Amino acid sequence: MRIHILAVGSELLTPFFRDTDSLYLTGRLNDIGLEVSVKVIVGDEIENLRAAVRDAWSSADLTFVTGGLGPTDDDRTRETVAEVLGRPLRFEEDLLRTIEERFHRRGKVMPPANRKQAEVIEGGVVLSNTAGTAPGQWIETAGGKILVLLPGPPTELQTICETHVWPRLAARGHSFLARKVLKTAGLTESELEGLIDGLYPRDPDRRLTVLASPGQIEMHISAASVRSAAEAEARVEALAAELRARVGAPVFSEDGAELEDVVGRILSARGETIAVAESCTGGLLCRRLTLIPGSSAYFLEGFVTYGNRSKIDRLGVPAGILETRGAVSPETAAAMADGVRRVARSDYGLAVTGIAGPSGGTAEKPVGLVYIALADHDSSCVEKNVFLGDRARVQTQSSQQALDLLRRRLLSRPVS
Amino acid sequence: MRIHILAVGSELLTPFFRDTDSLYLTGRLNDIGLEVSVKVIVGDEIENLRAAVRDAWSSADLTFVTGGLGPTDDDRTRETVAEVLGRPLRFEEDLLRTIEERFHRRGKVMPPANRKQAEVIEGGVVLSNTAGTAPGQWIETAGGKILVLLPGPPTELQTICETHVWPRLAARGHSFLARKVLKTAGLTESELEGLIDGLYPRDPDRRLTVLASPGQIEMHISAASVRSAAEAEARVEALAAELRARVGAPVFSEDGAELEDVVGRILSARGETIAVAESCTGGLLCRRLTLIPGSSAYFLEGFVTYGNRSKIDRLGVPAGILETRGAVSPETAAAMADGVRRVARSDYGLAVTGIAGPSGGTAEKPVGLVYIALADHDSSCVEKNVFLGDRARVQTQSSQQALDLLRRRLLSRPVS
Repeated sequence: MRIHILAVGSELLTPFFRDTDSLYLTGRLNDIGLEVSVKVIVGDEIENLRAAVRDAWSSADLTFVTGGLGPTDDDRTRETVAEVLGRPLRFEEDLLRTIEERFHRRGKVMPPANRKQAEVIEGGVVLSNTAGTAPGQWIETAGGKILVLLPGPPTELQTICETHVWPRLAARGHSFLARKVLKTAGLTESELEGLIDGLYPRDPDRRLTVLASPGQIEMHISAASVRSAAEAEARVEALAAELRARVGAPVFSEDGAELEDVVGRILSARGETIAVAESCTGGLLCRRLTLIPGSSAYFLEGFVTYGNRSKIDRLGVPAGILETRGAVSPETAAAMADGVRRVARSDYGLAVTGIAGPSGGTAEKPVGLVYIALADHDSSCVEKNVFLGDRARVQTQSSQQALDLLRRRLLSRPVS
Repeated sequence: MRIHILAVGSELLTPFFRDTDSLYLTGRLNDIGLEVSVKVIVGDEIENLRAAVRDAWSSADLTFVTGGLGPTDDDRTRETVAEVLGRPLRFEEDLLRTIEERFHRRGKVMPPANRKQAEVIEGGVVLSNTAGTAPGQWIETAGGKILVLLPGPPTELQTICETHVWPRLAARGHSFLARKVLKTAGLTESELEGLIDGLYPRDPDRRLTVLASPGQIEMHISAASVRSAAEAEARVEALAAELRARVGAPVFSEDGAELEDVVGRILSARGETIAVAESCTGGLLCRRLTLIPGSSAYFLEGFVTYGNRSKIDRLGVPAGILETRGAVSPETAAAMADGVRRVARSDYGLAVTGIAGPSGGTAEKPVGLVYIALADHDSSCVEKNVFLGDRARVQTQSSQQALDLLRRRLLSRPVS
């Protein structure tokens, strides 16, 4: 099956573009055993869009056209696709009412510009959009050619795909693809590569890709089978087992979960609680822990104690330690972790203090120096790190390392 | 000038792909006043590459073909481009020696497979590659059509471009490009469209694109001039002035700054301080404020008060209010803002309490209900919001709205 993805929008041709939509589409298509042949990105010039739709319609079996379904003058995807397909646009009153209701629910009146979002290409099926106003459309010919129109905002596109598109495609039955991602923390890319040396698959039906981001190196495994999903999965699992045996404890997730999910699940299962004190990460650690639905069961509270005053008043860090050792020191980190645990009456206290930069570094205490401390009722530990990179990167790595310290501690400690 | 970027490689059609090369090319082309019209990404299937090269060669003035210049069997970009252009490949002995020397310098012998990297399309100029083995090629017709072949690895591509490609293009003198982004908060995309109705430029040399993300709608303006950079900038500014006049106070930035930058600058300039109390945003608001270098000058501290106990103990929210009005109420939000300001001894106290979901909503207090409060020494205000979307989206919009409430308050209030 030949698949084209056609993304529309002049913002996609700027250097600021993040290709969220097509990566999502590619990933989910792979999940159901389909691969993308061509991606095309055009701006708002109609002739480019027209040529790309014409090309896709003549050579692809399945085409996704994303973006340009908004209410504005430069949103002309619907009209252009209708024109190339030689099918008129029909105005649907029911759809208009759905769009109007969405505005009503937010206490607003639908602007006249949004009327055109109720236009549907003849023969097209409306794919309802619960995350925005522009619905998707599914157009299919007697010969089995399919074209799917989707709005560009990632939440809307993904909502429509999960609700309508994947179930429809999966029902048609294609070849089988399995995937697994092993996420690791606490290793550099070179360290990981050293550990898995020689395990890159040589057969064309299996693939291993190593992807690095700050504080997290991932091993992406995929395998295909023409026979069965079980066979594809078995081939992935065989490679995963080898990788797991080589890499060991740094592998923290095999089901897509991030570190904050993993520690959240362990804390939930153990019925234990945590409180957080942050300096240089400025709320990022709390933010990550509370991104998880249901985190209120184990996350008691957090303190962003930026200045010394705040560390003393909120967490009871002794003024003497701050004076003699400084705010960025193992002693301060330990006192913060201990203090936040005591004040919040939690099982664990996790604390971060460091120099995120760009300024504030010295020869003795450079930018990137970060102390991370974890306290519980009968022990505490402090780790020293020196992270490279800009402010945001130092902060991300610090939060990652703090969550991993917590994870390792939880795994090594029996429930008390 | 019509520019196509054509990227070759099956890894570019996986969900793990980072579009480094084309973002780099787009950015550097913009710097010299050139815009990209179309991007096409194809895998290793020759017919797709052939069709894309044919299309680019017939409709573009300048085409970049990146990737597929390596030594392996599936690297067939050189052959395919030569075939479409109807020009033979010539083997260049000098080039072969350069490639062999590169291997020698690393103490290796060139594998036979790399021989084909010494093949040059007839009439093509070799663009030497000091970062790898595959050189680039510059092919130009009498009519001024240009096609540039570049290797895919980002370091190699960028090295060749910086050394050879940009100097060649700049020397030809192209039109000048200016850009500006007006960012707004507190408006929906439709509301903004209503305000700027009729201002979309009709001349081909100016462009206006509206981009929406949760809680932030941006107006991207660009203009070209064949005469001067000053003229291009004047044309951008003329449109910016019209948009500014129509939209007014919701425009918070024209220099790329995010809301947290903008409020940070105002607080710095006024020598005022802020403290934050968050419930449903779980640290995101602190995180955004402290992403800014130098934020320690105005950000005193933050409290992530997730449970009622924490709201009472840290911020002095009266237990009676939590019992009778609930944690998600205007009264609690106001008491949090007032409390955090008092406790932290800051000029402003900013507080957020709401239901981020997915659970916890009721008919009376649905998921997405968020109260945001701001207190200063002689006044306070509370705003009610109902945000749509999943947990992360409700949190993002809440933090955005909180920062914008602060911004509007700062702008309307003389320094005390």
